[in-house]
Amino acid sequence: MNIKISNLGFYLPEKIETSKQLAEKIGKSEDWIISRTGVKERRVSIIDVDEMGAKAVQSMGDLKKPNLIINASGVGKQVLPDTSVFIQKVLGWSGIPSFSIHSTCLSFMTALVNASGLLSAGLYDRILIVSSERGTKGRNFNEPESASLLGDAAACVIVENDNLTKSKINYWSMSTWPEGANLTEVRGGGTARHPHDSITTFNDNLFHMKGPKVYRMARKKVYKLISQILVENELTQEDIDLVIPHQASGSAVQAYVKYGGFPKEKVVDIISNTGNCVAASIPLAMAISHDNGQLKRGHKVLVIGTGAGLSAAGMLLTF
Amino acid sequence: MNIKISNLGFYLPEKIETSKQLAEKIGKSEDWIISRTGVKERRVSIIDVDEMGAKAVQSMGDLKKPNLIINASGVGKQVLPDTSVFIQKVLGWSGIPSFSIHSTCLSFMTALVNASGLLSAGLYDRILIVSSERGTKGRNFNEPESASLLGDAAACVIVENDNLTKSKINYWSMSTWPEGANLTEVRGGGTARHPHDSITTFNDNLFHMKGPKVYRMARKKVYKLISQILVENELTQEDIDLVIPHQASGSAVQAYVKYGGFPKEKVVDIISNTGNCVAASIPLAMAISHDNGQLKRGHKVLVIGTGAGLSAAGMLLTF
Repeated sequence: MNIKISNLGFYLPEKIETSKQLAEKIGKSEDWIISRTGVKERRVSIIDVDEMGAKAVQSMGDLKKPNLIINASGVGKQVLPDTSVFIQKVLGWSGIPSFSIHSTCLSFMTALVNASGLLSAGLYDRILIVSSERGTKGRNFNEPESASLLGDAAACVIVENDNLTKSKINYWSMSTWPEGANLTEVRGGGTARHPHDSITTFNDNLFHMKGPKVYRMARKKVYKLISQILVENELTQEDIDLVIPHQASGSAVQAYVKYGGFPKEKVVDIISNTGNCVAASIPLAMAISHDNGQLKRGHKVLVIGTGAGLSAAGMLLTF
Repeated sequence: MNIKISNLGFYLPEKIETSKQLAEKIGKSEDWIISRTGVKERRVSIIDVDEMGAKAVQSMGDLKKPNLIINASGVGKQVLPDTSVFIQKVLGWSGIPSFSIHSTCLSFMTALVNASGLLSAGLYDRILIVSSERGTKGRNFNEPESASLLGDAAACVIVENDNLTKSKINYWSMSTWPEGANLTEVRGGGTARHPHDSITTFNDNLFHMKGPKVYRMARKKVYKLISQILVENELTQEDIDLVIPHQASGSAVQAYVKYGGFPKEKVVDIISNTGNCVAASIPLAMAISHDNGQLKRGHKVLVIGTGAGLSAAGMLLTF
């Protein structure tokens, strides 16, 4: 699919919460947080996901209107309408078709693949994908590890058809294993444990993660996925210019070096200053690495990660 | 896009709630409900959306596994993981990539278009789309009109590449106007009005609709959309074999006859016995009309509707 990510933007909320500040709230030390999660500080947003997303879009500069908007986020502003509508509203636009794609932390990747399909089919020629997450609203301070991981951010890209450059998606693979469905959850907010249901507990409305179990399951699945991608594309680690992983945790990002066989300088690692920003982590890592010159036009990029489900996905991208 | 809806299924919960039974709960008469909404009875599910969706899938009979599952629903089982994971879990499958697409009542249509893009791009060759809605859980009995409209149902289709028959999507158009964002809402369940926020009210977690305003805005938009579709495809109402509209309300469905110019017998109308089943209404109307012989292979079908946003979408389909 000859598609090109022609523009990237992001928004990091102004307010920084250091792990020292968070330590008091969760009854752990700063060192405990950093050694367990790799997160030194995260952003905490006081504005909602639609405004955050719009700020990311505005950071791209003078913007020609897209002809489709996809919100690619794990948690919405409200149950309905979907968040894409509110992002469009904040941007002052009207009439642009909008919908949401949700596969938790992999939402940006699934949205990018869907956008590529729509571009290939000639249905749209300029698609805006926005991931905007305010995970700090769902932190459970009685679950110190997951509470330490989450951070707020928004990031976005414009995707267009492109037959002039070599930009394209070269490969896509995703798998979902529902036996991991209960490892990472927000059990409330839907029909199963509606806010008014008597069975719904306080914690059901907060983020819950069995961290070590997720890490073990994810590491095995991702290890196999990397091998599969390299073998099927007849590549080695050396052929990849940059790895943009989901920023699940410090150890999850480092695993791409330790077990994945990629040199440290080729793996985008922003988790210490941003935390796990759910679906926004991947486009944020992409936008920041593009800004600082790490990600360059023509680069062969491996975008990869895991999400609640448990799902794992990998994409080879010629940027 | 040469794609074919190769199989269809649906699930209607056993429990029927008549408008006479509902009348007591909302302080209105049976006649008031039927004259306002066109709904004589609706189903009320005691099982959750994942099990409902799985039952719809199982109704398709002996089933070859799909290589992608898209949940296309307005309201999820829980905030995360997304509902597709739980549908896969109930079906006893594992490893199939799964995600959700959400554009409220138009979720099935946007999912079908995205699936077509993925099929065209050669990424998948057998996609399962499931819409499963349990709107009765979010009814506000102090808002009699919207409470009378909602019903529960699940429906699904298998979409495949097909170059042997004439089956295809001939045309697609969607628009979203955020100035209508507050006309149809469930304001809670997300980051804006989290269940723990002090500003969150009881009603924020229930379905809210400004019925007459939605109807007026939607009717104008849909009227224009029909004209656009017919003109751009050089068709008249007579060239359309069947209209499958979203079952928004009795008057919304009848408007395709009264204002849209389609003969009554060509407009699929199931609202009196099922109510508005949010995203499940369109695939349910499709599956039921296929079952009863109204929808036939080779038919030129107009699938059309509106959703919270406010969005309107129309699709020309050679079935």
